[in-house]
Amino acid sequence: MDAPPVSLPALIRRKRDGERLRDEEIQSFVRGVTEGSAQQGQIGAMLMAIRLRGMDAQETLALTRAMAASGRLLAWPQGWRGRLVDKHSTGGVGDKVSLALAPALAACGCKVPMISGRGLGHTGGTLDKLEAIPGFCVSQSPEQMQSILEQVGCCIVGQSEELVPADRVLYSLRDVTATVDSLPLITASILSKKAAEQISALVLDVKFGSAALYPTLESARELAQSLVAVGEELGIRTAAVLSSMDQPLGRCVGNSLEVLEALQCLEGRGPDDLRELVTVLGGLLLWQCGMAPTAEQGQELLARALDDGSALRTFQAMLGAQGVPPDTARLLCAGTPQQRRQVLGQAGTREELLAPCEGRVQGIEALPLARVLHELGAGRTRAGEAINPRVGAELLVAVGQHLREGEPWLRLHHDGGLRAEQRQALQDALLLGTGTGTDTTGTTGSTMSRIAETVLPRGAP
Amino acid sequence: MDAPPVSLPALIRRKRDGERLRDEEIQSFVRGVTEGSAQQGQIGAMLMAIRLRGMDAQETLALTRAMAASGRLLAWPQGWRGRLVDKHSTGGVGDKVSLALAPALAACGCKVPMISGRGLGHTGGTLDKLEAIPGFCVSQSPEQMQSILEQVGCCIVGQSEELVPADRVLYSLRDVTATVDSLPLITASILSKKAAEQISALVLDVKFGSAALYPTLESARELAQSLVAVGEELGIRTAAVLSSMDQPLGRCVGNSLEVLEALQCLEGRGPDDLRELVTVLGGLLLWQCGMAPTAEQGQELLARALDDGSALRTFQAMLGAQGVPPDTARLLCAGTPQQRRQVLGQAGTREELLAPCEGRVQGIEALPLARVLHELGAGRTRAGEAINPRVGAELLVAVGQHLREGEPWLRLHHDGGLRAEQRQALQDALLLGTGTGTDTTGTTGSTMSRIAETVLPRGAP
Repeated sequence: MDAPPVSLPALIRRKRDGERLRDEEIQSFVRGVTEGSAQQGQIGAMLMAIRLRGMDAQETLALTRAMAASGRLLAWPQGWRGRLVDKHSTGGVGDKVSLALAPALAACGCKVPMISGRGLGHTGGTLDKLEAIPGFCVSQSPEQMQSILEQVGCCIVGQSEELVPADRVLYSLRDVTATVDSLPLITASILSKKAAEQISALVLDVKFGSAALYPTLESARELAQSLVAVGEELGIRTAAVLSSMDQPLGRCVGNSLEVLEALQCLEGRGPDDLRELVTVLGGLLLWQCGMAPTAEQGQELLARALDDGSALRTFQAMLGAQGVPPDTARLLCAGTPQQRRQVLGQAGTREELLAPCEGRVQGIEALPLARVLHELGAGRTRAGEAINPRVGAELLVAVGQHLREGEPWLRLHHDGGLRAEQRQALQDALLLGTGTGTDTTGTTGSTMSRIAETVLPRGAP
Repeated sequence: MDAPPVSLPALIRRKRDGERLRDEEIQSFVRGVTEGSAQQGQIGAMLMAIRLRGMDAQETLALTRAMAASGRLLAWPQGWRGRLVDKHSTGGVGDKVSLALAPALAACGCKVPMISGRGLGHTGGTLDKLEAIPGFCVSQSPEQMQSILEQVGCCIVGQSEELVPADRVLYSLRDVTATVDSLPLITASILSKKAAEQISALVLDVKFGSAALYPTLESARELAQSLVAVGEELGIRTAAVLSSMDQPLGRCVGNSLEVLEALQCLEGRGPDDLRELVTVLGGLLLWQCGMAPTAEQGQELLARALDDGSALRTFQAMLGAQGVPPDTARLLCAGTPQQRRQVLGQAGTREELLAPCEGRVQGIEALPLARVLHELGAGRTRAGEAINPRVGAELLVAVGQHLREGEPWLRLHHDGGLRAEQRQALQDALLLGTGTGTDTTGTTGSTMSRIAETVLPRGAP
């Protein structure tokens, strides 16, 4: 016998009191959210009750499934089964991994229907970075996505209105109700979208550190474990890496600059930390798909796609398929640094910040850097705001490097409006060890791994 | 130095994390609620955070003050100072105390600008009961209220749009977000309205028991203490009684029947438990106002007003002042029982329920009785729904009384639609002791006090 349906206030009360919600109760809540019968105030109260009382694995799975089922599911040709992959990052400063990873995976034979997000707070998201490229169109219907995957193997698009409408409602409310950092809500938000993509394998880049959603390794691990467990229950082979996010990823922050750095990575060059993350994440996916016998061998395949130019060619094809004029795509992918900058445009002012004293670089804090760039126009505060893609910064030094007083350490690109206190905030982001004692951070940033650990499903080798 | 203003999401986050909100932060939240800049979802999340994390006395006071200040404050002639009183009940089945208490207090020389509510759930509220009287108008402007207080000494009205608008928003949201039973939210909701009334003294009837908001004496005491402490901080002399609400108050439940029972009380007759509550609550107020040297002497003054007809005459005058035609008011107040029933109308069906077996009445549960009456039309489920004032029930027995099998114990008044399971639910509400052993509930209901204790401000004699 089914239990009788419970009213929404009664559901909220049960979660408020720390009780477990049954699958059909969670479905009823999500239906109310999607159809609009749930009042915004009720959704806000339920989100807070979930944030404070939590949800167990079964509830989180039910929430994820109900959200995925709130809209259209993507469907793919039978022959792609097992090769449909995606990657998701919890967000970091300078994170341009997707731009290189999607085409590299496609070059290895995967189909990558990557649905990405825009940035809110800090600097732009993956879509914002791609939109720094003239003509790039992130709006693609499911039919267009399939056509691009047939031709190119990968696409990077925005979330369509038809997919997971419940998440759009909940996500926008979480942002204003202090319920973003809830393990079950994050898990369901991320995985409902991936479930609607109907992919075979998923890898997650869960960041920890001062510029990440979760500051500590432990809390990031908890999220990764939740994501991996629920992902597997959804029938998606899921793995996660925990990577540090105290310092910007790579050397460039800001949308146009990050496209340039992603291109370097796609040429087999670029910063080591970026390449490491791209190859490790991709290697895990190739292994999960059975396209490589081990994750390590997958990583090698991925690295080869970066080194042999196949990933870059795929990127160029993806740009063409998503609206970038062929000449523009060619200049960007095969052109000189000078030609690339011409395509993307450049900020009016480039200004170097100088080391205030001599010392060894202990770190460059990502969060204050992102904040100032955001204020200068690199990010948006409200959905729909315009971004200035040319605003950004290049780190000129790496951790462990010795700096003399007056030596430049940061090149800032902006179109005016830099205030004295912002310049000071940037200078404060440079952590210099000026002592003469033994330095515990003696390794240089380029050789230090960002990846603390990998989280695999139970029973995985 | 003032702290910089904090955004609403940041305020919600702080309460979510169990932090204390500063006075100006609470003011900012209430301003957002009143002006509409706070989203409904944010208000819902904040209410849930307050429900789960609580508020200390200082926060509760700040919330009450900010809510009171969200709208117009009533103003009264200087000469009434010290005599302006009101009473509030947390709500019970068969609670018609206000109908008798307000005119009795006015007959003793008080000014009683009573702002009352409608029932939601269970049976009707005070306003619904008064609206069972043809012509009675609960909508009175502050100017009209003052005029009625000048002529009559008391009025019982609905909450005007201008008074405490923040409470209207929060109250309607609490109802659908499972945040009704929050000590600080209840305290602020009740007392902000009383603060806006600008009264001198307030007495609270805080119910406990199976048909009350708080089931246990301890939880009711906690609410009473919160109300008394915050009330005193607002400059209102505040006291509370804790009264039991397992069984209906008096013998009648349902709007028209309760008016008839209130009239009996106003004639110095009627059930003992009703008279006790009216006189004790009124006695406390007279003592608080300095109009009686002790609460007990206040109680005697109150009883005299019931016995000498002055309270009934004041009630008749109030009816006239609030729109009831003089003939109707006279028939109701001075007429025979038959004439009174003619004025109020009577349900089409009167049906007696019979004792299923012999035994001693241990109790008559108020909650199932109220539920069935509600279903038959005595209450409303949504704001604005019509009520059938004629639906109700008369208890024909008292606790401790001996019943023979087949003897009537309840007279139900309805206009059709009573289903078998409702009749069964009513029969189940009659608790009969059929054992032959010593009965611990050997006292009769009419001599048992409902009042468990009185809560006075610290320092009161």
